[in-house]
Amino acid sequence: MALSGDYRVTLFVGGVGGARLAYGLAQCLPPERLTIVVNVGDDFWHLGLKICPDSDTVMYTLAGLVDPVNGWGLAGESTQMLDSLRRFDPDGGETWFRLGDKDLATHLERTRLTSMGVRLTEITESLSRALGVRHPLLPVTDDEVPTLVDTEEYGELAFQTYFVRYRWQPNVRALTYDDANHASVTPEVAAAIERADAIIFAPSNPWLSVDPMLAVGDLRERLMRRNVPRIAMTPILGGAAVKGPAAKLMGELGLPVTAQAVAEHYGDLLTGFVDDTVNPEFSTDLNVLRTDTLMKDDAARVRVAGDVLAWLEGGGGA
Amino acid sequence: MALSGDYRVTLFVGGVGGARLAYGLAQCLPPERLTIVVNVGDDFWHLGLKICPDSDTVMYTLAGLVDPVNGWGLAGESTQMLDSLRRFDPDGGETWFRLGDKDLATHLERTRLTSMGVRLTEITESLSRALGVRHPLLPVTDDEVPTLVDTEEYGELAFQTYFVRYRWQPNVRALTYDDANHASVTPEVAAAIERADAIIFAPSNPWLSVDPMLAVGDLRERLMRRNVPRIAMTPILGGAAVKGPAAKLMGELGLPVTAQAVAEHYGDLLTGFVDDTVNPEFSTDLNVLRTDTLMKDDAARVRVAGDVLAWLEGGGGA
Repeated sequence: MALSGDYRVTLFVGGVGGARLAYGLAQCLPPERLTIVVNVGDDFWHLGLKICPDSDTVMYTLAGLVDPVNGWGLAGESTQMLDSLRRFDPDGGETWFRLGDKDLATHLERTRLTSMGVRLTEITESLSRALGVRHPLLPVTDDEVPTLVDTEEYGELAFQTYFVRYRWQPNVRALTYDDANHASVTPEVAAAIERADAIIFAPSNPWLSVDPMLAVGDLRERLMRRNVPRIAMTPILGGAAVKGPAAKLMGELGLPVTAQAVAEHYGDLLTGFVDDTVNPEFSTDLNVLRTDTLMKDDAARVRVAGDVLAWLEGGGGA
Repeated sequence: MALSGDYRVTLFVGGVGGARLAYGLAQCLPPERLTIVVNVGDDFWHLGLKICPDSDTVMYTLAGLVDPVNGWGLAGESTQMLDSLRRFDPDGGETWFRLGDKDLATHLERTRLTSMGVRLTEITESLSRALGVRHPLLPVTDDEVPTLVDTEEYGELAFQTYFVRYRWQPNVRALTYDDANHASVTPEVAAAIERADAIIFAPSNPWLSVDPMLAVGDLRERLMRRNVPRIAMTPILGGAAVKGPAAKLMGELGLPVTAQAVAEHYGDLLTGFVDDTVNPEFSTDLNVLRTDTLMKDDAARVRVAGDVLAWLEGGGGA
């Protein structure tokens, strides 16, 4: 990359798709020039453990430890605990969330530190450093801000109940981030926004991963005050989501399943947009980069990250 | 066995040695005629999990799931979680207690139920039934009654810190069961004492496993009121402990390492004593059965249990 030596990027990410762009950017930018802010709206307590699915996905991906098939969890994982737990739980009331044996160490250590009163920001730094992650990985808030999913079939569900237990099959009527509204952005995230030369929203689900971050305290206002490129990458390619419920959810929310609808959902938060060449062009005031955004392997992740950074270097995105 | 059809035994056990006698007796007596009461003085919280080492050892042994080499833990166990946890804990501050992956399911489920306010008695029943244990397994109390070990080297230690972390190497000055004194025997244990035709103390460590039970509330008085055989089996064979710190501890407490010293420690709580033929005979008012007590395999466990029951049937132990 030929960006100036102190050009700094702050990336907002959710789960698997966001983790892949984070991985690509982390290969292009040294730790002092890339800060990754992660959604905590899908964090939850399960079996007495504090679990941060998005944070773990990004952490494991950056550490090179992620399961390459699923895109989440750890490579070479085993499920001895879970298989044993089924003896106590034949109805599956507690075993629906996959907790691998290696993965359990992360949750146990996070829970231990949480119970000692350590901030999630510090816990995440401690865990990710121990696993060899070099770039700062910041939860958007230290507060608990569970996303709630209002469904036709079951009424209001906790996020992971909707997402994992029911495999995002219920029809969504609305999403609420009430706790986020009363939460605070951490000082570390505030500083990462202030020093950013560009703000990037990963191709994560805008409603399930990005909105829960934007709902936190005054985050949106902080972002709007920064006169730097603020760009998002489409999670929709050719009328479908690369992974997960984005397309299904957009339909349920009465939206066309297009990159345009994603860009319009972000609204004036964005100055630029990274669209995929498979999508039809659409009329917009945004500065648009059209490229192949599919990050199917590590090489593609680095290439996509490089494309975005080169575009920013050339004045794109503003 | 030819004991009358409603002859009932209540067995008090600690860890591995006790579990082996429990296993033998459980092969000889149907569930309605054998109740097993287990020590909880070495229970503790670790990594946010409620762990009951003696209870688990007995439960796994009765279920036929115990690791046959160690005598505790589960057969075919793996340690993926623990190996992963070491990345977060290079100094070993949290990884000294071996938590196998399968074993974790037990602790997670117990912790979950504990946090819901379920009594340990009910939790233990639920867990042991799920694993296929047919005989009642009762914690002596639902209260937390941690045994404390006063050592020359480190002062007062939590039991598992002494026993596992420091591998029972510190020199013991005293043992205290203060919380047990303020705890209550459960109604289930009280009933098991009331209906017993014989009360047996397994060849568990009298100071580390049995005394913490006897210290619970009015347990000793309840036992003393029962005019039935009350017998203990020696944990000392030929001047050594079959397993664990009994011999070392007796030396530290200024006692000769003999079955006689064990019998005298129990004092008037006993009416009978099961001694090993390798030990020298000693003068006592107790009714003594001398037999081979070494329970090195399942067959030996059943044989020893049968010897004891036959002796009781013939009027022994009283």
